[in-house]
Parts: sequence; C-alpha cells; structure tokens
Amino acid sequence: MIKTLEWTDDGVRFIDQTKLPTEEIYVTCKTYYEVADAIKTMIVRGAPAIGVAAGMGIALGVRHSKAQTADELRRDFDHICQVIGATRPTAVNLFWAIRRMQEKFASLQGQPIDHIKLELISEAQRMHVEDIAANKAMGKHGAVLLPSAGGVLTHCNAGALATAGYGTALGVIRAAVESGKKLHMFVDETRPFLQGSRLTAWELMKDNIPTTLISDNMAGAMMRQGKINAVVVGADRIAANGDVANKIGTYTVAVLAREHGIPFYVAAPISTVDLATADGSQIPIEQRASAEVTHLAGKQIAPDGVGVENPAFDVTPNKYVTAIITERGVARPPYRESLRALVGA
Amino acid sequence: MIKTLEWTDDGVRFIDQTKLPTEEIYVTCKTYYEVADAIKTMIVRGAPAIGVAAGMGIALGVRHSKAQTADELRRDFDHICQVIGATRPTAVNLFWAIRRMQEKFASLQGQPIDHIKLELISEAQRMHVEDIAANKAMGKHGAVLLPSAGGVLTHCNAGALATAGYGTALGVIRAAVESGKKLHMFVDETRPFLQGSRLTAWELMKDNIPTTLISDNMAGAMMRQGKINAVVVGADRIAANGDVANKIGTYTVAVLAREHGIPFYVAAPISTVDLATADGSQIPIEQRASAEVTHLAGKQIAPDGVGVENPAFDVTPNKYVTAIITERGVARPPYRESLRALVGA
Repeated sequence: MIKTLEWTDDGVRFIDQTKLPTEEIYVTCKTYYEVADAIKTMIVRGAPAIGVAAGMGIALGVRHSKAQTADELRRDFDHICQVIGATRPTAVNLFWAIRRMQEKFASLQGQPIDHIKLELISEAQRMHVEDIAANKAMGKHGAVLLPSAGGVLTHCNAGALATAGYGTALGVIRAAVESGKKLHMFVDETRPFLQGSRLTAWELMKDNIPTTLISDNMAGAMMRQGKINAVVVGADRIAANGDVANKIGTYTVAVLAREHGIPFYVAAPISTVDLATADGSQIPIEQRASAEVTHLAGKQIAPDGVGVENPAFDVTPNKYVTAIITERGVARPPYRESLRALVGA
Repeated sequence: MIKTLEWTDDGVRFIDQTKLPTEEIYVTCKTYYEVADAIKTMIVRGAPAIGVAAGMGIALGVRHSKAQTADELRRDFDHICQVIGATRPTAVNLFWAIRRMQEKFASLQGQPIDHIKLELISEAQRMHVEDIAANKAMGKHGAVLLPSAGGVLTHCNAGALATAGYGTALGVIRAAVESGKKLHMFVDETRPFLQGSRLTAWELMKDNIPTTLISDNMAGAMMRQGKINAVVVGADRIAANGDVANKIGTYTVAVLAREHGIPFYVAAPISTVDLATADGSQIPIEQRASAEVTHLAGKQIAPDGVGVENPAFDVTPNKYVTAIITERGVARPPYRESLRALVGA
C-alpha cells in the first residue's frame, strides 16, 4: 500500500508528490512549520490527505511545545493551528481537521499537559485510520454505480496519494475492480501541476489497472468516440447545495459528461461537505503562481511576461453532478436534503 | 511581420516553431526531403502554412531535378509529390497544394523543361502571396462578427505562424483590433504540443494585443465567469457538411461554448473546405507519438510504459459551429449549401 503520509518518531513522513513518478522520495517534516510548507508546496496534496497532514502537523507542534502549563500549551496550540490553516484556502478538510483538533483540545480541559499532548497525537493518528476506513466504505458504496465493464475517466488525483490511503475516486475504482468489474481508466494529465500523469497514472499502474493517459483537452474527443462510460472525481469542498469545488478542469469534464449523457460521480469523505457554505459561489478559490503555467520542470514554455490565470480549483454546479459518494452512503439530487441527511445536521 | 516561411535562393526558409518562444531560430531546407521532414516534425505547422510549404517543397524538388526531358521531370515530380503527401494526413491544404501543383504541371504540357520548372516555382510563390491576401480578406469578413469589446478565446495557433502570414483565426483578431475593437485574448496552452503557449501567446504579445494564457482545462471556468464572449479557431479540414477537424481539444472548447451561449467561429481559407469529404467521420485523424504526452522538453512527466492516446486532431460537429469565416465570405448553417456556394462547386 502506498504510504502517502505517516506518523513516525522523527516527525511526519511524506512521499514527496512533487518528485513522482520518476523518483520515489520520502521526506520527514520535523516541525509543524515544515508540515505547513509541505502542504503549501504540494509535497502532500489532495483534500483528505491535507486534512490528515494538518492533524499530524498540529500534533507534531504540540509534541514539541515547551509549554509548562495548559494555558501556555493552549497559546502554542492556537498559533500552530493558525500557521497550518494559512496554507491552502479551498480544501475544507484542512479546516475540518483543525476544528476537530480544537474540539479535542477543549474536551481535555483540566487534564495534565502530558495527557493532553498524548491525546492530541492519538487524535491525529485516529484521523489517519478513519480516513482509510472512510475510503474503503466509499469504495463499496460507489463500486456498484459503475458499469461491469467499460471506460472510466478521472481528473487530477483522488487516489491513495490524495488521502491517508486507498483513495476517494480511485477508492471507488479499486473497489469496483476488486469486485470483478473490468474497467479501463482514462486519466486526464491535469495541467498545470500534472497530478493525473504524475500521480494517478503511477498509482493505477502500481495496481495493474489498465490505464490510458490523455491530455486534458482530449476528454471530449474520447467521450464522443464512446470510450468513456462514467466519470469519477474527488472534491476539495462540497457546498450545502451540492456544488463541488475540485481541481481546475473538473467543471469542463462535467459539462462534457452531461453533453454525452455520461454519469458524473463525485467521491469524497463527509468531512468535505461544508454545510456552512450555501453554494459554490462562496467557496474561496486559491490562485497559484503563474510559473506553474509558464514553466514545466524548470523549462520555460511561454513567452516572458505573458499574463496568466492559474486558479487551482473550479466549481461544478450541482446540476452536472449525478451523485455524491461518501462513506455514509450516496447522495442524489436534490443535494440540499440528501447531503444534510448524510451529515446528520 | 512574422516570416513563417520564405522562398530563398538557398531553399525554403522556416522559422523553427519547435524552438519558440525562447529561441527565434530560422532553418533553411535545401531539399524537398528536408521540407517534408520540417512538415512532419512540425518545424512548420498549421494547415495553410503546410499547404504553402508543400507547394514550395515541390518547387524546390523540381528546381533540383536532374531530369533531361519533360517525361523524366514528370516522374521526379510525381515522386516528390508522394514524399510531400506522406507527411501529415489530416490537413487537407497539403493535398490541395499538391493538386494545385499537379494541375499547373499538367497545364504546361509540351513546354520546355526550364519553363516548366520556373512556372512551378512561381506557382508556389503565388500560393504564398495568395494565402496572405486570403487571411486579410478573412480578417475583414470575421472582424465584424466580434464584439466591440470583450474576451475572445482561441485554441492552438491559427496565426501568422500557421499561415504564410497574418493568420486565419488570429487574422480575424488582428483585423478586429485594427478596426478599433478592444479585445482581450484568452489563449489555451494546447497540450501536448503547446502551440497556444509557445506560438499564439508569442504572436499576440508581438502585436501588443492583451493576452492571458490558460491551461486547456481552465476554458470552462473562464467561460462560466463570463470572461469569454466569443471563440475563434482555425481548421485543418472542413467537411462538406461543415464538420470541422482542428487541433485536439477544439471539440471540447466547442461544447463548452455552446453550453455557455458563446458564439464559436471557425476561420479558414476556402482551400480547407473539402467537399469530397461528406462529413467529419471520414476525415483521417493523425495519431502522433506518445512521447509528446509523456515527456515535455525532454523531461519525463508520466510513468514508464503508461498507455497514451495522442490524436493530433478532433472533429467538431457542425451543430456547434456558429459560422465559418473564409476569404470569400462567411458561411452559416446549413453548411452543405453555404459552403458549396462559397466554393463555387
């Protein structure tokens, strides 16, 4: 199993996703600052993985805190949460993880400081275990939705590398293949950061799942040729009405899927559903550096000084989403009701 | 003015489009084999430019022919046309240019061999001059279709670099800007070969036209944000019914444009219209090497051995095409009638 991130005695150990697929290198972040930087520079990425990394980063900061009293620890803890929270704005799992750690901390009021530290470290590790279990459950719920044979398109990486393990969208694929379905995966390369070609293709090949890599702009042609029977993607945030923020390009795929009558599924843990966000227009969209578009692997591929747009995410309105697959079951339109029921709010 | 290709005493001189935008290098092909190779390796690309390059390649071969009689020259000529014709299958302008040279040759029957040679060389140069004139006419016809201000998306490069000069789609943009329209260009980078980021952005910046470069998969998000008011692209072949073969990804853009109620224009010389091809399903689609997708500037960006699809073109069905802009005027649906009228068949 791919070890996306791991709690070790030395710190939080990540597979460096910026180096894949040509190099399989692991880095150990020894401070919470290093964890924050790993999230920001996308050594670790993918909404659920960011959530677990945030939990572990906070736990790491707490472990190293020199606080003598619970009050001092609380001040350190608040600062740590601020640093971790300032890394990437779109994935709601980041804030979900921080809130979970905050609630844990609050529940430990009056306990000895060492006990608080140990409990917070345990909480982060629990998030890791729970995330894998959620993905397996998502896989079971989602696998039945896919055809017994055919082509499935995915965008970006919503795999083991985007989670604590197994994956959300790719978890559904893995579960379908494990259940005997004969799927052929089409993988969008996912410019500008190439999560599809670098990460998803790598993961799927490790699992011997038949895979065809395409440029993002080929998705329409592949659909028109009848090669794609379903689309499954992950999500970085799902609004209360079912609008989905996910990697830039997801919306384009969703429009194409609808035009071709192909079901478009979103697989994400319930922690991705943000009932406090009424609809997609309220989701903050991270803008990243233009160099991601104008350069590739250090090589300049566009003229000096050209203007660039580089939103890391886009919003797919709920009308394009056939179903949302969570660990608690499958939500169908109207999403305001079905998501609320699954969240249990 | 950008000199895409030029007839010189030493041979056919091309700006090497594989080296742009970081290097502006010119190569002179001294034999028709070198011209064929330049077309195949995309030192020169773009349907109209390929047509003119083919004409010049044939003229170059004829100039160097050691034939002593018109019959010998005819045999050499046929072989040259075969080599030039075997380079790229989709752009019909290639075959149009060959046929034009063949017809010219046929019209010179009985003439002295030196005269035939000179006439064929003149014919190739005429194609060059006529292509620029056609683009200027296209520009005039197309400019009026664009809004007086707003964002316009283009895909791939249908500019000066894709033609003898001025451009088809970018010719329309240039003419609109020259007529005082305030356009802001959005340029798809156009994976895998990056004609958008490398060539179109470079051309537009040379002309000081405001330009924003985006990854292909951002087009949907930009449209949804209302930033794009029209789309203009070129074409490699237009079937009798108005189906359009153009750079891979064009179909995806066309579907997105329709979904957002944005007009989708195709600009191409009448030589691109192939009445012998009833519809898009009959257009041969060139498949190119998988390394174009798995590598970028020599750097590997996908796992070893991954399967790849790399069609160089896709077909946009006529229902997505708002109008086709040619040097003879603008064709509107139903295209079978309007195109036939423009071709004069």
